[in-house]
Amino acid sequence: MNTSAKSDDSDAAFPRPQHRYGARPTMKDVAARAGVGLKTVSRVVNGEAGVTADTEQRVKDAIAALGFRRNDSARVLRKGRTASIGLVLEDLADPFYAPLNRAVEEVARAHGALLINGSSAEDADRERELALAFCARRVDGLIVIPAGSDHRYLEPEMAAGIATVFVDRPAGLIDADVVLSDSFGGARDGVAHLIAHGHRRIGFIGDQPRIHTATERLRGYRAAMAEAGLPVDDAWVSLGTTAAGRVREEAARMLAGPEPVTALFTGNNRVTVTAVRVIAAAPRPVALVGFDDLELADLLSPAVTVVAQDAARLGRTAAERLFRRLDGVAEPPRRVELPTRLIARGSGELPPAA
Amino acid sequence: MNTSAKSDDSDAAFPRPQHRYGARPTMKDVAARAGVGLKTVSRVVNGEAGVTADTEQRVKDAIAALGFRRNDSARVLRKGRTASIGLVLEDLADPFYAPLNRAVEEVARAHGALLINGSSAEDADRERELALAFCARRVDGLIVIPAGSDHRYLEPEMAAGIATVFVDRPAGLIDADVVLSDSFGGARDGVAHLIAHGHRRIGFIGDQPRIHTATERLRGYRAAMAEAGLPVDDAWVSLGTTAAGRVREEAARMLAGPEPVTALFTGNNRVTVTAVRVIAAAPRPVALVGFDDLELADLLSPAVTVVAQDAARLGRTAAERLFRRLDGVAEPPRRVELPTRLIARGSGELPPAA
Repeated sequence: MNTSAKSDDSDAAFPRPQHRYGARPTMKDVAARAGVGLKTVSRVVNGEAGVTADTEQRVKDAIAALGFRRNDSARVLRKGRTASIGLVLEDLADPFYAPLNRAVEEVARAHGALLINGSSAEDADRERELALAFCARRVDGLIVIPAGSDHRYLEPEMAAGIATVFVDRPAGLIDADVVLSDSFGGARDGVAHLIAHGHRRIGFIGDQPRIHTATERLRGYRAAMAEAGLPVDDAWVSLGTTAAGRVREEAARMLAGPEPVTALFTGNNRVTVTAVRVIAAAPRPVALVGFDDLELADLLSPAVTVVAQDAARLGRTAAERLFRRLDGVAEPPRRVELPTRLIARGSGELPPAA
Repeated sequence: MNTSAKSDDSDAAFPRPQHRYGARPTMKDVAARAGVGLKTVSRVVNGEAGVTADTEQRVKDAIAALGFRRNDSARVLRKGRTASIGLVLEDLADPFYAPLNRAVEEVARAHGALLINGSSAEDADRERELALAFCARRVDGLIVIPAGSDHRYLEPEMAAGIATVFVDRPAGLIDADVVLSDSFGGARDGVAHLIAHGHRRIGFIGDQPRIHTATERLRGYRAAMAEAGLPVDDAWVSLGTTAAGRVREEAARMLAGPEPVTALFTGNNRVTVTAVRVIAAAPRPVALVGFDDLELADLLSPAVTVVAQDAARLGRTAAERLFRRLDGVAEPPRRVELPTRLIARGSGELPPAA
């Protein structure tokens, strides 16, 4: 069996069940219809020299008439590259990840690669399952927003040549490229902004404590409070799921009692959306700074002050790093931290309620 | 050469360039380390019977020690199914498509299939290029949000057995399954709602006229106006890109002059976001109903009345249809139209400004 002669004729090499897949035209069919040899068809399909213009046209006519299509999935396997990359996100439905997803797609597209992606749903097992499924399809590279904290399961894949870059959160227990936003610095700036506007009792509501960005932002909150010489009451800090019910309860709790917080710092876009709703219904104004920008944040009353990260840039930077790796750049793993930007719009500049 | 003996040893069948991909352990390596035959390893990897518990453990230990991984991309090719589906969206970054994307992923996941996706960027050539690239990778099925209006290029793929479902907009010039929202009915309801609140001069700003949903929503607008016996001034209707600059100009134009419109109906979420900004800066109140819901629509002042479609349900319905096709259901192509829901929140209930 001569594998190379089958180069564009994978239906013969990999027969499909006929009850489902109709008979795809093969290169043999094209050759027969055009009245040329298999090698000539192969040359035309692969854009190689050595075919007269007239013959090329005959082959192209036959291809068009038969609806012949090259089978890239067999082709790329033989080439050792699949021209595809895998992206494990937290949630394809989260608007924060949508621009990151698109940015990765655009870089992949510029490199002629397709994008396979999926949601970990913040579940370490599902992240692992997805990442390994992508590897089993022999993606050339992998971009992972980690849900889990132990990525040693990827070591054999990386050793076998699957370029891997982590984004938004670092890898756990392995040394790998990572692209992050400056969660610590961004949160510290946002909380310092509230302190500068007179707040002393500031609540922090963030994501689950096993998520790197959640603890980094909490660290930023604590740093800003400490730098201002302000104590932090345990009742002012709440990490947990971003489910609306939990955030609503925690915000309401912090805003109640004889010594309520006068301001909230929210750890991500999901938390901010719920906090905005709670504050809108509160009896007195509550200042708010949220991590992550929101589409209509500028139109709310007050408009929402945020610490914005550039999700598209995160995705682009990670994807560019990945393709540099695929181009053979052999540097030690690098940690890239992108700056955040405080956008003052009104909610973060409210003074403490009397 | 015995292809079946190579069933989990694709590195031998498809040699990779050694400068990039390290030497992945093969089934032969596993067999050697475990001190068993290749067939035994194959049985363990594929969960087949005929291996003692002790031998199975030896093979599993060898697999773990070597970091051996099955190569699904070769495997699935031989099986005739790739357990992957392709999704061509308009824009991975658009929050409207994010829940649709996730819903398709979840259905695919329930069927053990991975998701390859990409953005057409509202460009017919790019849609075709993506869809055909997915087909060339031999996805089992394809879900397409069409950018173009001629899908005959997919006929050879569909004939060859790639299940194909269109969503959000119908296919052009071919007969295929399609899942839509009731754009006509939704827009008619929304405009009738404005008329019921006293409006006579109502502007319509929509997406480009070659997009099916744009013209269907315009048709709904015209139907509501005609049913109320109201004339439509050409100056009140504007179809075009959803770029903020264009929408801003058109909205400002309709709101100016001696006989301005007193209400706007906006054709999708992108248009609504800009219209909300224009109206917020307008000297007098302007009523607004937008097609598509927005995340913070209920918190704006006034809160935005919308005709909501269920993007996740669109995705889920399309994906379920696709997998029914893959399960061998051979019905004629079907058109499914999902209802929309008018959510009155304030902006659509404003009376005409004096």
